[in-house]
Amino acid sequence: MPELRKDPVVGRWVIISTERARRPTDFQREPVRARGDNCVFCAGNEDKTPPEILAGREEDAPNTAGWTYRVVPNKFPALRIEGDVEPTAEGLFDRMNGVGAHEVIIETPNHHGSLAALSVDALADVLMAFRDRVLDLKKDPRFEYVLIFKNHGEAAGASLEHPHSQLIATPIIPIMVTEELAGSAAYWQMKERCVWCDIIRQERRAGQRVILEKHGFVALAPFAPRFPFESWVLPTQHRAAFEETGPEELRGLAELLGEFLRRMNTTLNEPPFNFMLHTAPLREGELDYFHWHLEIIPKLANVAGFEWGSGFFINPMPPETAAAALRGDAPP
Amino acid sequence: MPELRKDPVVGRWVIISTERARRPTDFQREPVRARGDNCVFCAGNEDKTPPEILAGREEDAPNTAGWTYRVVPNKFPALRIEGDVEPTAEGLFDRMNGVGAHEVIIETPNHHGSLAALSVDALADVLMAFRDRVLDLKKDPRFEYVLIFKNHGEAAGASLEHPHSQLIATPIIPIMVTEELAGSAAYWQMKERCVWCDIIRQERRAGQRVILEKHGFVALAPFAPRFPFESWVLPTQHRAAFEETGPEELRGLAELLGEFLRRMNTTLNEPPFNFMLHTAPLREGELDYFHWHLEIIPKLANVAGFEWGSGFFINPMPPETAAAALRGDAPP
Repeated sequence: MPELRKDPVVGRWVIISTERARRPTDFQREPVRARGDNCVFCAGNEDKTPPEILAGREEDAPNTAGWTYRVVPNKFPALRIEGDVEPTAEGLFDRMNGVGAHEVIIETPNHHGSLAALSVDALADVLMAFRDRVLDLKKDPRFEYVLIFKNHGEAAGASLEHPHSQLIATPIIPIMVTEELAGSAAYWQMKERCVWCDIIRQERRAGQRVILEKHGFVALAPFAPRFPFESWVLPTQHRAAFEETGPEELRGLAELLGEFLRRMNTTLNEPPFNFMLHTAPLREGELDYFHWHLEIIPKLANVAGFEWGSGFFINPMPPETAAAALRGDAPP
Repeated sequence: MPELRKDPVVGRWVIISTERARRPTDFQREPVRARGDNCVFCAGNEDKTPPEILAGREEDAPNTAGWTYRVVPNKFPALRIEGDVEPTAEGLFDRMNGVGAHEVIIETPNHHGSLAALSVDALADVLMAFRDRVLDLKKDPRFEYVLIFKNHGEAAGASLEHPHSQLIATPIIPIMVTEELAGSAAYWQMKERCVWCDIIRQERRAGQRVILEKHGFVALAPFAPRFPFESWVLPTQHRAAFEETGPEELRGLAELLGEFLRRMNTTLNEPPFNFMLHTAPLREGELDYFHWHLEIIPKLANVAGFEWGSGFFINPMPPETAAAALRGDAPP
């Protein structure tokens, strides 16, 4: 019997369609592997990107080789860094000039590398770069939010195969974050507890949807996932703002995230995927009711026909089965 | 300069990324054309589907050839018709057994046909079938909503190429409809006017985003579209519930919709697409503040990387340009 499940934060219902259920291996598709070489993001081609904003390097020689990661402005930005935020009206419509920052975090000089293959130190450095960019962009009073995300593989929207993440700083808060904030605040008002902390507590007790826990972080399959193998990574202690995470903690996150990605690659044969960091808005700081988290979504099927128009998701993979597969439990 | 635009109903912002703009023809991809023949939905194979619920036929000989359209239960339903709605809790999570109806509307006996190619009469009959199924399912007190939608082409999620739409009756209201209802109600509270009626009035006055208007219906490119060439069809007179539309009006809709689809096929080279009917919930009836509409979304690119995680859409096609192309204006 299929089941309807409701996300406790945003109130979105999904259909867990057990009658269409398939084995974890049925979701595998063509693995994502780099075919090219020597692209604009590769070591030695530093002059082919806009000048770097930040980089991991031993010597102070910007825009030369010898780096472990680089942050550069996106050459084809969705938003432009110049200008003031100017809201205007067109009758009942609202518009604003497209002010923002759009940066690329090149995660490794190695075209054939990946976050999953980085050393813990190198991955922790990339996470530190995420944090440092948020802290820096926070100083710009025009911005309300910094979205950090990754498109890995062409099917997940990546236009370049060299391993990279992106960030977009915006003068407004993305609507999905607004919805999570509203849902979290409503729960707080009722219970005076963080709903995310409550979820973590309940999931740890139940165990069945927990994928991995170590060094203060947990990876779990959410109760009402939109997509097969959708997974969330959260700090087990309450924390609303990602940029408040210290270097030691980020090293813990690197340990967990690296292991999660390697398990995902094993279970799903190096799938295309997206991730998206949901953190508190820049001007909010340490909210009692919000809890930052990383949403990781393997891109496994072109299922999303009517989902776009309804917000109603049909997911053929129960999260309990997905978590068991990602934990590496023997199949039943 | 890119521009941020806000949808006046749900408050979702999108980035109209003019710097990434392309010509309308740049969005064309492989046209959707039927390759197979003689499938389970074809005339003569009536015994290969579950028995029909409704059909357009001259003679009363159900489940035989001689029909113009057929409505049958989906053989692999996302929800099951049997049982009562039983909400249960799992700690802080909510679930419900997956009760619902999942039906297929086979739009023509012709495997190589399409909605765009149907006669006005035949298309009006299909729209009448949509209406009749909503009216019938409304009698079932377990259902709160009927979603009518179409996946056309594999890229848009269609698993069978024979022309068909689907409907899913659910015991809950899809979240995107809930959000539209909330936004529309808030606008009504402020203005005591239907926001959709106001949009239509403003768009008709401005003209630049109107694609087509005839027989009491208008097709327009919304001010803040998520996707290139996203288009909405609405009745120009206020009406909240699709199923209240009379036969004469549905004929007018058939005229407009057929012409819209043919223009879309010409402009975008028979693209894959989805449509989704947003109507008032079954138990609400004629709301003052809501206005039914059909959202039509050509599936033109795998752009949707980070959009899933943020609700923040980057659209490289300004709706004014899209509307001009769909109107057939000479390129500037």
